[in-house]
Order: sequence, then structure tokens, then C-alpha cells
Amino acid sequence: MDIKTAYNDDNYTIHVGHNIYDTLIHDYTKDYKDVYYIIDEYVYELYETKFSQLNHVIKAPRGEAFKHINPVMNTIDSLLDLNIKRNSLIVVIGGGATGDAGALLSSIILRGVDYIHVPTTLLSHDSSVGGKTAINRPHGKNLVGTFYRPKAVIFDLNFLKTLDDEEILSGFGEVIKHAMLNDQITVENLMHQNRRCINIEQLEPFIITGIKTKLRYVTEDETESNVRKALNLGHTLGHALEYEYQLKHGHAVVLGLLFMLYVSNERLNKSFNLQKYVEYFKSVGYDVSYLNELNIPSLIERMSHDKKNNETEKIQFVLLEAFGTPKFDNICIDELTHYLKEFQEII
Amino acid sequence: MDIKTAYNDDNYTIHVGHNIYDTLIHDYTKDYKDVYYIIDEYVYELYETKFSQLNHVIKAPRGEAFKHINPVMNTIDSLLDLNIKRNSLIVVIGGGATGDAGALLSSIILRGVDYIHVPTTLLSHDSSVGGKTAINRPHGKNLVGTFYRPKAVIFDLNFLKTLDDEEILSGFGEVIKHAMLNDQITVENLMHQNRRCINIEQLEPFIITGIKTKLRYVTEDETESNVRKALNLGHTLGHALEYEYQLKHGHAVVLGLLFMLYVSNERLNKSFNLQKYVEYFKSVGYDVSYLNELNIPSLIERMSHDKKNNETEKIQFVLLEAFGTPKFDNICIDELTHYLKEFQEII
Repeated sequence: MDIKTAYNDDNYTIHVGHNIYDTLIHDYTKDYKDVYYIIDEYVYELYETKFSQLNHVIKAPRGEAFKHINPVMNTIDSLLDLNIKRNSLIVVIGGGATGDAGALLSSIILRGVDYIHVPTTLLSHDSSVGGKTAINRPHGKNLVGTFYRPKAVIFDLNFLKTLDDEEILSGFGEVIKHAMLNDQITVENLMHQNRRCINIEQLEPFIITGIKTKLRYVTEDETESNVRKALNLGHTLGHALEYEYQLKHGHAVVLGLLFMLYVSNERLNKSFNLQKYVEYFKSVGYDVSYLNELNIPSLIERMSHDKKNNETEKIQFVLLEAFGTPKFDNICIDELTHYLKEFQEII
Repeated sequence: MDIKTAYNDDNYTIHVGHNIYDTLIHDYTKDYKDVYYIIDEYVYELYETKFSQLNHVIKAPRGEAFKHINPVMNTIDSLLDLNIKRNSLIVVIGGGATGDAGALLSSIILRGVDYIHVPTTLLSHDSSVGGKTAINRPHGKNLVGTFYRPKAVIFDLNFLKTLDDEEILSGFGEVIKHAMLNDQITVENLMHQNRRCINIEQLEPFIITGIKTKLRYVTEDETESNVRKALNLGHTLGHALEYEYQLKHGHAVVLGLLFMLYVSNERLNKSFNLQKYVEYFKSVGYDVSYLNELNIPSLIERMSHDKKNNETEKIQFVLLEAFGTPKFDNICIDELTHYLKEFQEII
């Protein structure tokens, strides 16, 4: 399926499907004089027969290892060595981290060169949509970046076949988040179809729903001044957990979603069945035991650096009135400490 | 004088005048909860009584030393230490290099924080206009950057009083370039009023003409896909000379302008009086002797990395049909070598 963005200008297509890479990459690259490929080194190995035939390939450090300033600048220098021009094209092949860092460098090299993202993980169905680019700093994730739209996203689901269980679990975290931001029925269908194991063959409609859900928020508010922040659902604690315990992104988000449901119950007087979601998440393979012994002061410190915060003594959270109805809330650090303590008791 | 940009949106004002800083900075900062000042360490020393009263000051390495990735990332980390938020304001105080690097970091920290530039040098009348941000790489100048507009530029000409002769000469190079891109009369007036020394008191109208000239090109083509490239007049060889001989930017541009006039004579059959401009530039203090012994292969190598180039074996130059009428030309490396050899003989 082709999903077209609906900005005022500079729109692009997100192509989702099986076996679409070869034809589409040919179509997109043929009008550029020079094309440069930045490929996650692990993905390159997996598909070496396919990629070893390309000219101008730069292998990027695997996954999150690429999201640091040094590998980004090294890759920029490699592209300059290869004589990249402003009218060249960069094709970024890899998961979300590769996309984040590859898009960032595309946006700053020569003040911006066209790029296409070819996501290779389930997780990147999320990060490849919305034009955000990012690298990490010691203070936290994604603290440096730009807004920069690709010329296209080619999401060939065949790449998902080589994912290991951990990767699938990580990507599934964002699938769940998007379902929760869509509506109750999507959440229930998802839990029904992926009971006790994640069935990758059945995920395509949920991926498409996820991309469309995300685009709805992003198109309305590209630079995240208001509604786009809803996509941060589960991420405030999630990012802190990810850093604190070196978890995979989507895994951390799922744990953050549980806390979000708990806080929504407490502050908005909702009655999400927390235990049901805990059980479901455990059944498909997430380790929720991290939530039993939280280093609360360290997590609070990390959350206070979240770039979504606008007030110094408060931390911005996205809660849910209902699935599909996000609500923003600034929570004092004292209250948050209290919630975290209570939460780890009942989990 | 207030000069307003004329983009479709996100316009801002460039304020030019004497004694305007204090009032304007008060007006612009009062609506922000947090304001962070990035000040060139040398400028900070010169105006310590003024700046030592500010909160949240980060001193930046002096001039070009700031235009590298490490000091930029260090400054970003300092801002994160100070708990900068997306709705904060960054005020960048210093010359062109401070502005380039300060604007770059403003554009990438938390994916973009508002910033105001307070230029303190004559040279920065140029770089503070047009929304380009940049740092250098080993391959050349300004190879990494973004397009990012400030909320305002406050150009208080009182800061120019502490400039040394070298700085004034450097800034004057861009004043000359803008005069050449404006018209014959501006060039002649400039040469008339600044004969044998640069009279900083008389420069204000030329600075204003320079800013307006630049804005005319920039507004038409912000991301430099076509006409904006005219502002590169003198810069193709200029940047290469600047790197090769560690010259001040405007000084190198002036030498590049001489070569540009020579090549315009040769390729466009013009009759710019090269000797007259050589004599004038020498009389106001530029050292043109660098042009007598050029390391041509190295300069060619540097020019071939210029990010304006779109063709691999050719180097894009801006020439002049007449003052105010730029013309683009792609010159083969062989021809360019020939021109450089001939040029250094006659200079």
C-alpha cells in the first residue's frame, strides 16, 4: 500500500508491502547522477549478495551505535571523500536508529541532501514516519536533531523476516502504542491476533494503521508544538528506562505504557485494567520485572531532561482519557515520585 | 534602520544602528522564560561589565575555533546542563563564525530552539543575514550546516569600535562583494569614500546596501538552488585560499574577487580594470602577494570539494557580466589551472 503524506508541500510516499524494494529503489534512484548508500553493517551482512553489487556503500555501526556524533561525522567525511554533491541522493537502509542518524546527517551535510529511507525493522515503521532526525547525547536520547523529510520511505516487509525475537518485541511496542492512540477496537484486535506470540504475518494491517495514525498527528503539527506530542505516549518513562537499563526502545515503551495507564487511572479517574495489560505483555514476551525495582531518583533526573518539558519543576506526560483520546498533563516531581513508588508495588 | 525580511512566513527584522542593543535585547527576551547567552570569549572579555551581569552565559571559543563539531557539542551539553527547553531563547553574540556555529547548534539542540544573533563584527553583516548555519570539516569550510532563521538580528554598530584593522579588512571584503553585486555606482562610491583607509564611520549606508542586496538574493532562493549562489562571488577561490593560507575570510574573498574579475574578462570578454582594483585593494591594506605563488593543485583540490558544485569534473564559478549582473559558469579543472597560472603571472 502507498500512503501519501498530506503536508502543504514537499509531500512524499510511504510504500508498504512485500517484495517492493527492488522495483522502487530503481525508480527513485534513476534520476540522480550519484547515489550513496548508508547501510547498517548488520543488515549489510544479512543481505550481502544484494548490497555488495552497489557502488558508494558506507556501512554504518549497527543500530543505536550509529546515533552518536562521532560515527555521524565520520560518515559525513566518508561521503565527502566520495565527492557527494548537493544534488546527490542518500539511501539509508536499516532500522530506526540507522534512519534517525542517517536522516540527521542527510539534513546537515552540505546543508541538506535528498534522502530515502528503507526501514528494515518493525520498530522503524514508527521512526521512519514524520521527518524527525536524531542522535543521542550523554544527557539523553534524541537531544540533537532536525526536522527533515525524506523523498520516500520504502518499507519492504520482507526485511522483517531476518529479525530476531527481541527486535520484533521492540517494534511491536510502537505497534501497541499506535493502536492505543487509534481506538479501543484496534487495541483489542491486536491483542486477539497476537496472543502469546507476535504473528509477524498478521501485522501488516496494524503497521498500516500505525503509520496512518502517526501521520494524522504529524501532519497537523510537524514540529511538535502541540498535538504531535501525543505520540510520546509511554515514552516519558520509556526513554528513561531505556537509558537506565539499556533496554530496546519498544520494550521500554511498553513498560512506559503500563505506567501511563496506571497514572491515567489515578489522575484522570479512569479504569484501565492494568493487570490485563501486564499479563498480555508478559505473555508475548516482555520482561516487566524491571518495573519492580526502579531507581526512581535516577529515572526522575532522566525524565526532567526530556526535551518535551516546558516547565522546570514539572514533567510532561501524555495520558489517555480513552484509547484514541490522549490528554497532556504536567506532573510535579514529587507526585511523580509517589506514582512510581506506588506503581512498583502493585506491578 | 530596521530591515524586515520578506519570506512567505517566519519573517524577522534585522536592526542596524548605533546604541540599539540594550533596548532591543530587553524587548526580545522579555517574553521568554529562560534565555541563554552564547558569547564569543573574546567579545565577552571586551564587554565584561555588560555581560557579566547576565544569567546563563556560555563563553564560546573565539571566532573560527567555534566552528567545529566538538566545541558545538560541548556547548550543547552545557545548555542541557543548564536545563534548556524547547521554548527557551538562545542569544548568540559574536562575529560571523560565532553566529554560524551558534545558529547551527540552536537549530539542532532539541531539534530547534529560537535564537537571536547579535553580530559584533563588520564581517557578520553578511553571515548574519540569510539563515545559513555552518561548521567546518577537514574537507573544507561550511560543509555541515542547516537553514534556520533567527527571530531577529540586532546589529549594533557600536560593537565595531573594538575591532582591529585585520577584522575590519576582513569584513570590508564582504562589503565590497555586495557592492559589486549591487551596481557600478555603489562600487565607485565605496572606493571613493574608503580610499587608502577604511572609514568605519562612513560604512553604515554600505552595510545597509549590503544587507538589502543579500536579502534580495536570499528571499528569492533561500536554499540556494539557483540565484542565491551569486552571493558566492569571489568565494570559490576565496574559500580555498582561506583554508590553504589560513587567511581571514573577507581577506580571502577580496583575493577571490580579483580572480573572478580576471576570469570574467577572459571568459565573458569583459574589460574590468584589474590593475585598478589590485591597486585599490593594496592601498586599503590587503596583501595580494599570496596570489603570486599559488599552490594550484591544492587549491583546485579544495575547490572541487565546494558544495556548490554539481558536476564532478567542473567547478562552479560566479562571474560578472557587469557590477550587479552575476553569471554562473562551470569551469573545467584544466581550464581553471590555466587561468590560475596566467593570473598569478600578471598580478
